[in-house]
Amino acid sequence: MPQNLSSDTIAALITPQGQGAVGIIRISGPEALNCAGSVFRGKSLASLPGHSVVFGRIVDDKGRDLDEVLLTLFREPQSYTGEDVVEISCHGSHYILQELLDLLYRHGARPAQAGEFTRRAWLNGKLDLSQAEAVADLIASETQAAHTLAINQLKGGIRDEIRELRTLLLDFCSLIELELDFAEEDVEFADRSKLLQLLAEVRLKIDRLLDSFVLGNAVRQGVQTVIAGRPNAGKSTLLNALLGEDRALVSDIPGTTRDTVEERLNIHGILFHLVDTAGIREARDQVEAMGIARSYEKIRQAAIVLYVYDQSTLGAEDLVRDLESLEANRESIILVANKSDLPQVQAPPELEAYVLSVCRVAARTGDGVVELKQMLYDTVLGRSEFAPDSLGINARHRNALTAARQELDAADHGLRIQLETDLIAQSLRRVLYHLGEVSGEISTEEILGNIFGKFCIGK
Amino acid sequence: MPQNLSSDTIAALITPQGQGAVGIIRISGPEALNCAGSVFRGKSLASLPGHSVVFGRIVDDKGRDLDEVLLTLFREPQSYTGEDVVEISCHGSHYILQELLDLLYRHGARPAQAGEFTRRAWLNGKLDLSQAEAVADLIASETQAAHTLAINQLKGGIRDEIRELRTLLLDFCSLIELELDFAEEDVEFADRSKLLQLLAEVRLKIDRLLDSFVLGNAVRQGVQTVIAGRPNAGKSTLLNALLGEDRALVSDIPGTTRDTVEERLNIHGILFHLVDTAGIREARDQVEAMGIARSYEKIRQAAIVLYVYDQSTLGAEDLVRDLESLEANRESIILVANKSDLPQVQAPPELEAYVLSVCRVAARTGDGVVELKQMLYDTVLGRSEFAPDSLGINARHRNALTAARQELDAADHGLRIQLETDLIAQSLRRVLYHLGEVSGEISTEEILGNIFGKFCIGK
Repeated sequence: MPQNLSSDTIAALITPQGQGAVGIIRISGPEALNCAGSVFRGKSLASLPGHSVVFGRIVDDKGRDLDEVLLTLFREPQSYTGEDVVEISCHGSHYILQELLDLLYRHGARPAQAGEFTRRAWLNGKLDLSQAEAVADLIASETQAAHTLAINQLKGGIRDEIRELRTLLLDFCSLIELELDFAEEDVEFADRSKLLQLLAEVRLKIDRLLDSFVLGNAVRQGVQTVIAGRPNAGKSTLLNALLGEDRALVSDIPGTTRDTVEERLNIHGILFHLVDTAGIREARDQVEAMGIARSYEKIRQAAIVLYVYDQSTLGAEDLVRDLESLEANRESIILVANKSDLPQVQAPPELEAYVLSVCRVAARTGDGVVELKQMLYDTVLGRSEFAPDSLGINARHRNALTAARQELDAADHGLRIQLETDLIAQSLRRVLYHLGEVSGEISTEEILGNIFGKFCIGK
Repeated sequence: MPQNLSSDTIAALITPQGQGAVGIIRISGPEALNCAGSVFRGKSLASLPGHSVVFGRIVDDKGRDLDEVLLTLFREPQSYTGEDVVEISCHGSHYILQELLDLLYRHGARPAQAGEFTRRAWLNGKLDLSQAEAVADLIASETQAAHTLAINQLKGGIRDEIRELRTLLLDFCSLIELELDFAEEDVEFADRSKLLQLLAEVRLKIDRLLDSFVLGNAVRQGVQTVIAGRPNAGKSTLLNALLGEDRALVSDIPGTTRDTVEERLNIHGILFHLVDTAGIREARDQVEAMGIARSYEKIRQAAIVLYVYDQSTLGAEDLVRDLESLEANRESIILVANKSDLPQVQAPPELEAYVLSVCRVAARTGDGVVELKQMLYDTVLGRSEFAPDSLGINARHRNALTAARQELDAADHGLRIQLETDLIAQSLRRVLYHLGEVSGEISTEEILGNIFGKFCIGK
C-alpha cells in the first residue's frame, strides 16, 4: 500500500544529457531545502513560500562561484513527489551540472535512481500506478496516438475505470455481506438476478478495457506489417509507394530483394513497421532459399500481411494456391491486387475464406495507395475505435484484468450453481485484489522494479 | 548602442534535445504572456506577479490536452532577457515539445535564432558584450580552468576592467578638454608629466589584459603540444606515460608511428592536445618521408614541442644538430632526456640557446613524468598566474585592445613631441572607441553575428 516512507533526500539531473542553454537538477526529500540552502547564496530558502523562484549563486566548498542560477522551491505536499522539492536551473554545461551534483551529494543528498521521483510521487498518493506508467509512456511517445493514450492515462483514465469497477463490486459486496451476516438463517436478501446483472455489467467493463489492449499495444509498439508475394509482384514498389520515397531497391529482375527491409510508416498516428520480404517461389539457389524461408517466418510473426499479387498475370487458381500456402491467420491478410493499371488476366474468385479484405492498387502510379493506408489503419482501429478520450491498456494491466476476469467468471458460475455465499465472496475479493494490481494498491517489489526501472534517471 | 528594440516575441526549447524527464520552452517578448496564456489552462497569467510558478495544462487548438506543465512567469525587466518571459516545463517528450512550439508559433511567437535570448539580454542592458560571450564559454566549459575564466567573465570581470580604463581616460580627458577650451590662449593647464603618468597607467592595465590572452586562449582552445624526436627515442612510450594508458602503438622497431596520433591531456584544468609524430631520420621509403615531413610541419604549428631524445645513446653533438634542424621557437621547446634509468652516454652541452627547459624522464618506468607535467603547466601559466579570479581575454577582445593600445601609443608620442592638443584628443577618442568594442557600446552587425551565432538555439 502507498505510504510516505522516504527518510532520505535524492537529487538528479532531470533535463536531457548534453550541452544546452539550461540544465535542471531536482532535489527531493526532507533535507531538500537544507541541502540546496548549503550551496545557494541568495534569499534564505527557509522563509520562502512554496512555488517561489529566486535568483542566486551556487558556491562550492572552497567559496568559488560555480554558477548563477534560478532556484524554484516547492513545499510538500504541493510538489511533483509530494515532498519538499528544490529545482536548480543552471547553465547547461556538463561540467557545472556534474560539479553541482557532486556538491549536493556532499551536502546530504544521494543520487536518485531511475524513476525514483515518480515512485515517490506514487508512494505519496500523487498518482496511482497506471498514471505513473503514463509518465514514462508520455516521455516516450512519438506519435499523436501514443501521446493521446499516454495523456488520457496520465489524467487518470484507467484509474477512473478501475474505480468505477470497484464501486460496482462494492454494491455487489454489500448485498452479499448482508447474506453472510444472516448465513445461519439461510435467507437470500440479494435478488440472484440482480446480482447476475451486476456481474455482467462489471464483466462488460473489464472486457472493454481488455479489448483496448489491441489498440494500446499497436499504438505503443507499432504494428508489424509484412509485405509478401511472388517475385516481381511489385512488393518493393508498393513499399516505396506507401513510404512515398525510393527506399527499397527496385528493378525488373525477379528476386531483387534478398534480405528483409524494415521501414516505419505513420498512418494517422499509428506506426506500422513495414517489412519487405523476398519473393516466394521455387528457389534457384541456397541464398534465395534462405530468403524465402525467412519470408514465411516473417508472415507467421506479422500482425498484418499485405499479400501482393500481379492481377495482370496471375490466374485465380494460382492465387488461391498461394494464399493456402501462407499458413497465416485470415484476419491478418490484406490482399493487394497490384498493377491495376493493366488489364486483369482473370476475375478473382471468392476469397473471403482466405483474406480479411482486398485492395486494388497500381503501386507504380500510386493509384489506390491512399485507400490501402486507410485499410491498414482500419484493420487495427476497427476493433477498438480511436477517439480523443481513448484508453489503451498495457500488458501488465491485461495480465491483472485477465486474472480479475477469471475470478469474476468463477463468481458468476458460483451464483448460477448456487455455491455457498462465502465462496462467492472469496472470488469477489480476488477480483478486487487483481484490480488493485492495476492501480497499485496491491504491488510487489518486482512489479515496482519493472515499472520504475523503465524510467530514465531524473523522472 | 544597446537599446530596447524588440517588438516581436520569440520562443525556443532551452534544454538539450533528446528524451528526458523534463524539457523547457522559453517565450520572451511583449506578447509572451498573451501567447502562453492562449494555450495554458490554469490561473490567469495576467494577474500573477513576476517570479510565479503555476501548475496547469497545455491545450491545443482542438481543445485536446497536450501536457500537464509547470509555468514560470517573469515580468520585465526582472528576467533573463529583460522582457516579459514565460518558461513552460513539460514532460521531456520530443513529440510534446515540438507540438507546443508549433502551437506557440501559431499564437504570436516566432522561432528564436541562436543566441537571440542572450542578444536581447544585452540589448536591454542586462549584461555587456563580454558577459554575453561568457555565457557561451560557460556552457562550453569542460575543465575547471575554462569554467573559472567563464564565470569570472560572466560576473563582469572584464567589464569592470574596461570601466576602470574608461575612468582613467576620462580623468585624462578632463585635463585635455580644459586646454582645448582655452586653446587660443596657448596655455597648458595640464601638467605634461602627470598626463604621461596617467597614460602609462592605462597602458599597463591594457598590457595586463592583453597578456591574459595567452592564458585565455590556452584554457579555451587547449595547448597544441607536439612530441617529436628521432625514431625509438621513446616518443610513443612518453605519450602513454603522460596519458597513463596504452594509447599509442609501442614497439622496439624504429618507425612504428607512421601517422600522427592526437590525445587530450588535462593538467590542473588546462587541456593539452598531445600530438605524437613519426620519428625524424633519413626516410627509407616515400611513406616514411611523408610522415617525417608532417612531423616538421606539426612542430612549426605547435605551441609547445616536447623534443625527446635517448640520453643513453645520443651524443651531445648529434643532439645539438637535431635541435638546430627543428626551426622552432626556443621558447616553445622542452627537451625531454629520456631513458634516465639507463647510463648517460655523454653529459649534454649548454642548451639554453636551443630550448626553454630540460626534463629528465624514464618514460618506460614513469620516473619524472609528474615533473614533466608540471613543467608543461608552468610553461603556459608561468606567463600569467592562474588565480581563482583570473581573467583571460579572447581573440576579439585582443584585437580591440591591440587597436586601443596603438592609439594610446600615438597619444603618448603626441604628448612627447608636443603635438597639438586636439590631435591628442582625437587619438584618445579612438582609444575609447576600441574599448567600447570590448564591452559592446560600439558594435557592428558583423561582430554581433559572430558572437551570438556561436550560441546554441535556446540561449
